[in-house]
Amino acid sequence: MLLTFEPVLDRIAEEIADLTERGRPADYIPALASGDPQDFGMAVAELDGTVYGVGDWQRPFSTQSVTKVFTLALALARKGEPLWDHVGREPSGNPFNSLVQLEYENGIPRNPFINAGALVVTDQLHRMTGDASGVLLDFLRAESGNQDLDFDRDVAASETAHGDRNAALAHFMASYDNIANPVPTLLREYFRQCSVEASCADLARATGFLARHGIRADGSRLLTRSQAKQVNAVMLTCGTYDAAGDFAYRVGLPGKSGVGGAIIAVVPGRCTLCVWSPGLDERGNSVAGVTALDRFTTITGLSVF
Amino acid sequence: MLLTFEPVLDRIAEEIADLTERGRPADYIPALASGDPQDFGMAVAELDGTVYGVGDWQRPFSTQSVTKVFTLALALARKGEPLWDHVGREPSGNPFNSLVQLEYENGIPRNPFINAGALVVTDQLHRMTGDASGVLLDFLRAESGNQDLDFDRDVAASETAHGDRNAALAHFMASYDNIANPVPTLLREYFRQCSVEASCADLARATGFLARHGIRADGSRLLTRSQAKQVNAVMLTCGTYDAAGDFAYRVGLPGKSGVGGAIIAVVPGRCTLCVWSPGLDERGNSVAGVTALDRFTTITGLSVF
Amino acid sequence: MLLTFEPVLDRIAEEIADLTERGRPADYIPALASGDPQDFGMAVAELDGTVYGVGDWQRPFSTQSVTKVFTLALALARKGEPLWDHVGREPSGNPFNSLVQLEYENGIPRNPFINAGALVVTDQLHRMTGDASGVLLDFLRAESGNQDLDFDRDVAASETAHGDRNAALAHFMASYDNIANPVPTLLREYFRQCSVEASCADLARATGFLARHGIRADGSRLLTRSQAKQVNAVMLTCGTYDAAGDFAYRVGLPGKSGVGGAIIAVVPGRCTLCVWSPGLDERGNSVAGVTALDRFTTITGLSVF
Amino acid sequence: MLLTFEPVLDRIAEEIADLTERGRPADYIPALASGDPQDFGMAVAELDGTVYGVGDWQRPFSTQSVTKVFTLALALARKGEPLWDHVGREPSGNPFNSLVQLEYENGIPRNPFINAGALVVTDQLHRMTGDASGVLLDFLRAESGNQDLDFDRDVAASETAHGDRNAALAHFMASYDNIANPVPTLLREYFRQCSVEASCADLARATGFLARHGIRADGSRLLTRSQAKQVNAVMLTCGTYDAAGDFAYRVGLPGKSGVGGAIIAVVPGRCTLCVWSPGLDERGNSVAGVTALDRFTTITGLSVF
Repeated sequence: MLLTFEPVLDRIAEEIADLTERGRPADYIPALASGDPQDFGMAVAELDGTVYGVGDWQRPFSTQSVTKVFTLALALARKGEPLWDHVGREPSGNPFNSLVQLEYENGIPRNPFINAGALVVTDQLHRMTGDASGVLLDFLRAESGNQDLDFDRDVAASETAHGDRNAALAHFMASYDNIANPVPTLLREYFRQCSVEASCADLARATGFLARHGIRADGSRLLTRSQAKQVNAVMLTCGTYDAAGDFAYRVGLPGKSGVGGAIIAVVPGRCTLCVWSPGLDERGNSVAGVTALDRFTTITGLSVF
Repeated sequence: MLLTFEPVLDRIAEEIADLTERGRPADYIPALASGDPQDFGMAVAELDGTVYGVGDWQRPFSTQSVTKVFTLALALARKGEPLWDHVGREPSGNPFNSLVQLEYENGIPRNPFINAGALVVTDQLHRMTGDASGVLLDFLRAESGNQDLDFDRDVAASETAHGDRNAALAHFMASYDNIANPVPTLLREYFRQCSVEASCADLARATGFLARHGIRADGSRLLTRSQAKQVNAVMLTCGTYDAAGDFAYRVGLPGKSGVGGAIIAVVPGRCTLCVWSPGLDERGNSVAGVTALDRFTTITGLSVF
Repeated sequence: MLLTFEPVLDRIAEEIADLTERGRPADYIPALASGDPQDFGMAVAELDGTVYGVGDWQRPFSTQSVTKVFTLALALARKGEPLWDHVGREPSGNPFNSLVQLEYENGIPRNPFINAGALVVTDQLHRMTGDASGVLLDFLRAESGNQDLDFDRDVAASETAHGDRNAALAHFMASYDNIANPVPTLLREYFRQCSVEASCADLARATGFLARHGIRADGSRLLTRSQAKQVNAVMLTCGTYDAAGDFAYRVGLPGKSGVGGAIIAVVPGRCTLCVWSPGLDERGNSVAGVTALDRFTTITGLSVF
Repeated sequence: MLLTFEPVLDRIAEEIADLTERGRPADYIPALASGDPQDFGMAVAELDGTVYGVGDWQRPFSTQSVTKVFTLALALARKGEPLWDHVGREPSGNPFNSLVQLEYENGIPRNPFINAGALVVTDQLHRMTGDASGVLLDFLRAESGNQDLDFDRDVAASETAHGDRNAALAHFMASYDNIANPVPTLLREYFRQCSVEASCADLARATGFLARHGIRADGSRLLTRSQAKQVNAVMLTCGTYDAAGDFAYRVGLPGKSGVGGAIIAVVPGRCTLCVWSPGLDERGNSVAGVTALDRFTTITGLSVF
């Protein structure tokens, strides 16, 4: 390869250091509210797993909604096309936990990355495996090569204590027969997944299978080439809450954000990225994170468009 | 290049010939209602303008909303970023002529490809040039190399006669001061643009600047590289009405459809496509058209993901 | 008094017997699904408690949402104006269990007679008394003079088993801090209230305090004159789901319906009515019940307008 | 009669004089923006046309939406029940010029008092008479006994100049074939009706037919008893924009407000009222007007409940 990522990352980190408006951390649970918007880390993983990083790229943080990508891939690998009977793949056009569209569309969530959709995907994965959160954790450990990855039980407990909206979503979909497990069981599995602690390095590596068209770190296949394309497409159109259009416009890569401040992104056939900074914009995406990815694609030309 | 498009197109045309469910033509104006869902044409244009085609690829049809892409590019080239003060770039999540979101978002349409957004873009282009439809026609003639391209005055008159919904949209946005021209003037310009007659060959060539990162057929630059990326991104997230997520999932290319049955698509840095068949699905996209593009990316691997 | 109710009731019963289109019973729980649309009863209670009836006017049925009126009165009597901090008093304009408006209005339900609003009122009554359903039952027994009135435990159990939508509503409002009790406790109290079995005679008498401007059967005051006016006003504007305007237009009386097929109505200063027939229209109101009340006000001229 | 209105009106005027929070006049056209919230007038008309007044009760003002009641009565008298094929009679649950419900309900406005519904009623009256605004003016002159009543051409012109929202509504309903006249014709008739200048005395008298169960000032019948009841019912459930529930709760009378600051109200079988003060609350109703009517029903006990 001709392009070397290290100087690119250094240049981005310098520019981010000058960024004065950095947003505010999520404040609905204590573990997130203590985040410092000045913190910043970024990692790029080559297809072979080699990782380059800058800043706090090896420091663990709360992955939150970023794990929805892995849960989707694990459920899609097991269930295939029939998964889409339970969840759509259209952008939401509404804030990420909206009940409105869910009602108009009879309990079928618009896509797997809004909370309602992620609950449905978790529900399906748990129904097939009996251990949705365990299957996810095993996968993340294997792909990242980091056996120390784990749930943060305090975060999961905090989420549960503030979980009335997700409980409402789950009961609402259950009223349309779109939930197979008991709601408390589903919520436990769901909040555990949100609570996984990982670093930029871990997540950049774990995302690699989407740049390798479905091939896992050990060379086995998780998704067909077509399914890998599909997951990337859903990330591009639905991965950043109500800002997917703007993210595609600015960054031009499939990406998925979480309220912990992380964003993962994929350059199909080339590399994967993870950036983290806890300050969020009003739509729930990391301010420094989106800026860093915008700079990355502008500097390298590595956009899908 | 190693890939030869001709056998690919032949294979797709054979498969499409076997497609039994082909949708129904749009029926709100006579010129469209007479379309035959069995008609089919497809063209691929290389970056240098070389075109390959199959079926009715040289037969003119009503371009309808496909021209919204060119109007957007022409307005963006002249106005730059401030264009986005008047129109958003987020997927709609609602049927393409919905007033609902327009009201919630204070007269700023969600994106340039829903009718409300296209009215705003036309309004801006007309304000800057005094001849929005003329500027568009000149551009299409130059890029396609076909000086015979023209409006279909009967179609424009039919659209005007059935134009109450678009008149409602325009007045509604005018009530938010988001329309600069008198509403009747704007509607005349808008309906003229929809009425352009062109063939698959014409449109595949005319779209070339989006695969050439902003460079026109004569080598001059219309858009910056970044702007070309942005138009492609908006096409991918918003170009196929309420089915953008599904189109990205199946086809994986920036594309724009019209109720005349045409769809244009872009493989950045590689080629452009236009497919046409008048039968539409319930979301307004050509059934045979989406299927043909799905087959094209599957056979060639030329998806952005 | 000059008007004698008995011949009026007989005439109405005859007309109802000829009514061929009588709707369908609610079918979401077995106890309601077995209702026969041919069943019909009607009772009028004078201010002094004298009751006249026709048909099945002494036969008990499932009161369902009719009890929401009594719960509202009992909560308003205890809490006064601050009750309206938790629930509005505007017509809904949407189906009775809609989540849409609840989201736009930040967890404050539009009025006490949609399910969300009744949950909030029950929640407040339970917070003040520790026994919302018991307080309701005592009140109904005292006002009707029927000490045998009781909950139907099978109905309450059936409702609980199909209670996902109400659970969703309760959790959703809890996420806005508008629910004080644990959700399972609240649902238990709520479903018990819906399960009360009573006859037309019982309900016509129990409603008397609203025609007596707030005075209970024993002469003591439950509501101020102003509060009684207010409850009647809320019944008129919000008492019949999404058909309140039509009910006011046809019947012209404050009324409250339930999916068990009952409707209570008030002629302030004059009398109270209860009619019952299990067949419902598409908006959840008893077909024969609305017709009977329409005939009653037309024959007697006893409308508020 | 035992009750004398004059001391009641004097007492109310004194209390209103102490009212410090009086809202703000409508500001979208100059003629309304110049209104002084300290201005106040109130009139009560007996069934025989005798009028009592206080404050600026003989001073003309812009009647605005108050005239929608008369247009409805005139259209209903001519067309009868089939009028309701074109407009509903359910409360809106949304701000008064909302397009949202109009779209969900296929171009049939919810009720005759939201702008969309009043446009439809005017359209029908104009279709039947060829002179909707002239018919209205003749009626108001006859019922008020004031032959000097007239349109204010400046106000009508101002409304037209700011009429984009109403033009949008009219075109939108035309797209559903629910408008019979050309949109510009309809708007002219509509805005003329809004521009009528009249005093509290004029309007209290002109409303008399609704308290007389349909009988006009000259003893002839405009509406059947049943139709008069129906118009009163629609006023109660839909007459005060998004505050109909609150108005029924506080005032307990059928009423209709206008953004000029007037409110008319009906005590069926007893009297009619008109109150005027230009300061509006955030829902478009006169602050002093609602307060005065609230006091009136509390002092006299003349509520329908």
